[in-house]
Amino acid sequence: MIDLNTIRNLAKPTPSKIILMVMDGLGGLPLPETGKTELETAYTPNLDKLAEQSICGLSNPISAGITPGSGPAHIALFGYNPLEYTVGRGILEACGINFELEKTDIACRGNFCTVDQNGLITDRRAGRLSTERNAELCRMLSKIDLDETQIFVVPVKEHRFAAVFRNPSLSADISDSDPQQAGVLPNKITPLSPIAHDTANIINSFISKAKTLLSDLHPSNMIVLRGFSKMPDFPQMGDVYKLRTAAIAVYPMYLGLAKIVGMKTFSCSDEEAEFSSLIEHYNEFDFFYIHFKESDSHGEDGNFDAKVMAIEKIDTMLPRLLELKPDVIVITGDHSSPALMKSHSWHPVPLLLCSRYCLPDHVKSFSETACARGGLGIISAVDIMPLALANALKLNKYGA
Amino acid sequence: MIDLNTIRNLAKPTPSKIILMVMDGLGGLPLPETGKTELETAYTPNLDKLAEQSICGLSNPISAGITPGSGPAHIALFGYNPLEYTVGRGILEACGINFELEKTDIACRGNFCTVDQNGLITDRRAGRLSTERNAELCRMLSKIDLDETQIFVVPVKEHRFAAVFRNPSLSADISDSDPQQAGVLPNKITPLSPIAHDTANIINSFISKAKTLLSDLHPSNMIVLRGFSKMPDFPQMGDVYKLRTAAIAVYPMYLGLAKIVGMKTFSCSDEEAEFSSLIEHYNEFDFFYIHFKESDSHGEDGNFDAKVMAIEKIDTMLPRLLELKPDVIVITGDHSSPALMKSHSWHPVPLLLCSRYCLPDHVKSFSETACARGGLGIISAVDIMPLALANALKLNKYGA
Repeated sequence: MIDLNTIRNLAKPTPSKIILMVMDGLGGLPLPETGKTELETAYTPNLDKLAEQSICGLSNPISAGITPGSGPAHIALFGYNPLEYTVGRGILEACGINFELEKTDIACRGNFCTVDQNGLITDRRAGRLSTERNAELCRMLSKIDLDETQIFVVPVKEHRFAAVFRNPSLSADISDSDPQQAGVLPNKITPLSPIAHDTANIINSFISKAKTLLSDLHPSNMIVLRGFSKMPDFPQMGDVYKLRTAAIAVYPMYLGLAKIVGMKTFSCSDEEAEFSSLIEHYNEFDFFYIHFKESDSHGEDGNFDAKVMAIEKIDTMLPRLLELKPDVIVITGDHSSPALMKSHSWHPVPLLLCSRYCLPDHVKSFSETACARGGLGIISAVDIMPLALANALKLNKYGA
Repeated sequence: MIDLNTIRNLAKPTPSKIILMVMDGLGGLPLPETGKTELETAYTPNLDKLAEQSICGLSNPISAGITPGSGPAHIALFGYNPLEYTVGRGILEACGINFELEKTDIACRGNFCTVDQNGLITDRRAGRLSTERNAELCRMLSKIDLDETQIFVVPVKEHRFAAVFRNPSLSADISDSDPQQAGVLPNKITPLSPIAHDTANIINSFISKAKTLLSDLHPSNMIVLRGFSKMPDFPQMGDVYKLRTAAIAVYPMYLGLAKIVGMKTFSCSDEEAEFSSLIEHYNEFDFFYIHFKESDSHGEDGNFDAKVMAIEKIDTMLPRLLELKPDVIVITGDHSSPALMKSHSWHPVPLLLCSRYCLPDHVKSFSETACARGGLGIISAVDIMPLALANALKLNKYGA
């Protein structure tokens, strides 16, 4: 892995164009009956033909055996060491609901939960209340008065919400109130550094007022908060790579992640709209990150066939992208989401890179098994951006 | 490679079981006449069948081109960066003879050697004296009086012994007396930090008294010492990985290494007993490291056929292990020991990992050549533990 400063010193602006297409949760595991993964089961003539013209391989999102969340998995795809450039849980949650964060805001992830008469948590998810009920309760909590600190409590789904506290003097360096287990009391929030003393008091006061407001509203009679964080101050992709960068996605979380690294974002209603957005803005940018969610959603649901169909749907639309004749196309996933596991997994993800200079290998289909024998081998996801830039002839020589 | 602290934060206890089976010195080189390595020559129907159900690859013990000793090679297999977590030569030697070290002991490796009338070393191995003679001389040296410092001088083999000095005030931060060449004087031991001043004096006094005792006993008329070290204070596998760990081996050195990382150890008389011990203790632990020595011994002796037979012997016993149906089986070597080279070597070692979630590749036999095309690619030995933990579903997701 090369560091961003070295890349910054080598990168040069050129008119060439790169498309990084991310099929979320792309990698899978074989059905025992067929021995074929989701991608291997899907009929993907366009992806296969492209693989034949590409150099292929597998992308290791973080490190061998490590199952990534979407945050670090994407940060790695954008070329940032995900163990160094970490994004807080609260920030990810706020990104996920498209909340417009200000630089000094602190955000956290919240759960409505159930506590018994002694205050002990009996259900960390308050019986997975409905998202509608969640929204009502969030409106109630948003009205809590914290003097100079503005509060935004925004529903996510079921028992989950994001809370954002706005006051330039706040510090995110405080502990969680969420003990992440039942049978115990919520933790009192404590400052993790001296400057966070006042913040801890403010948030504890918020929790205390929320408890009073919710006390008669069993099963959602308490909240727990975790992952307090501010927007990270990452180097921006445009500066580092000398690129005009655009992100195209349906889900806000991915646009939020793209914003953190400085991309201009385009929110779309579905995949068709995403391809159209790419075409519409093609002349305005040098780098496009285009994200397709469904392969992951169906993988996490354990729906093998639906994941197969989600992959096939993208394959049928792929010619629209290819017609643009970008100088470099990269197609991969941020991580694997095998339907068999109903979750993200650690398995390396199929990867293809097509360019005039890619040195095609013998891989003739886009699949886990074929890509494992590809010319790229198994590479770290953070190495994809330097490879894409190199293939776009956007990197100067290192040393004389 | 992921750091141990990150793994510590992700690891969770589960009932799943992992077996790490190490065939010491497994990797080899082809006989020129047949073009087949020891492992490729051996008839190994059980290993081959398992390879077919596994994901395979090659394990690089330390780094490309680096031939490891048994110490760092095993430390890497246990998931510790072998360049960071180093075990002193003296400690390895003491482990190898099953010496019960106390925390403050300092241990070193010693050679009986021959010096001429001017004190110059003429033979660093004293003509490879017999192990019996070695034992007599060690008994003699053990009687040297060093006031408060207790001395243990224990024979290893031929000219080699281990010396342990017990006195809580000792420091291991002293230089070697062994110049590791003939034709020169043994070095005076010097402190490498101020706190080691007294230790250097004590050990120099020991050497001086030993010289007097041995002076008439040509060819073993002197000693040279090296690798002064204390027991390293490594993170313990149980804490880091949340595992109950057991080590099963015949040779004390491997049990000693396992003790350093906190495993409970079971000493066995032979391979049959090792498999029996595994079965006997299977319910008590989550992780088993089981070590088979003979493939290495015969490799180091240059006995190709005996190494082939050693591998075949383990293959015939393998079904006893498979019957336990562990959740994850890893089989590899700590390093290669090609009979052709009569020594350890740098060559990556065949590796298989079998689990419900392993994603089997096209490898149908367990061999150097087949594994080189396996789905794991060529990985670093330190990545094996995270992969094993992931396949046993013992690691939480990294980030959200």
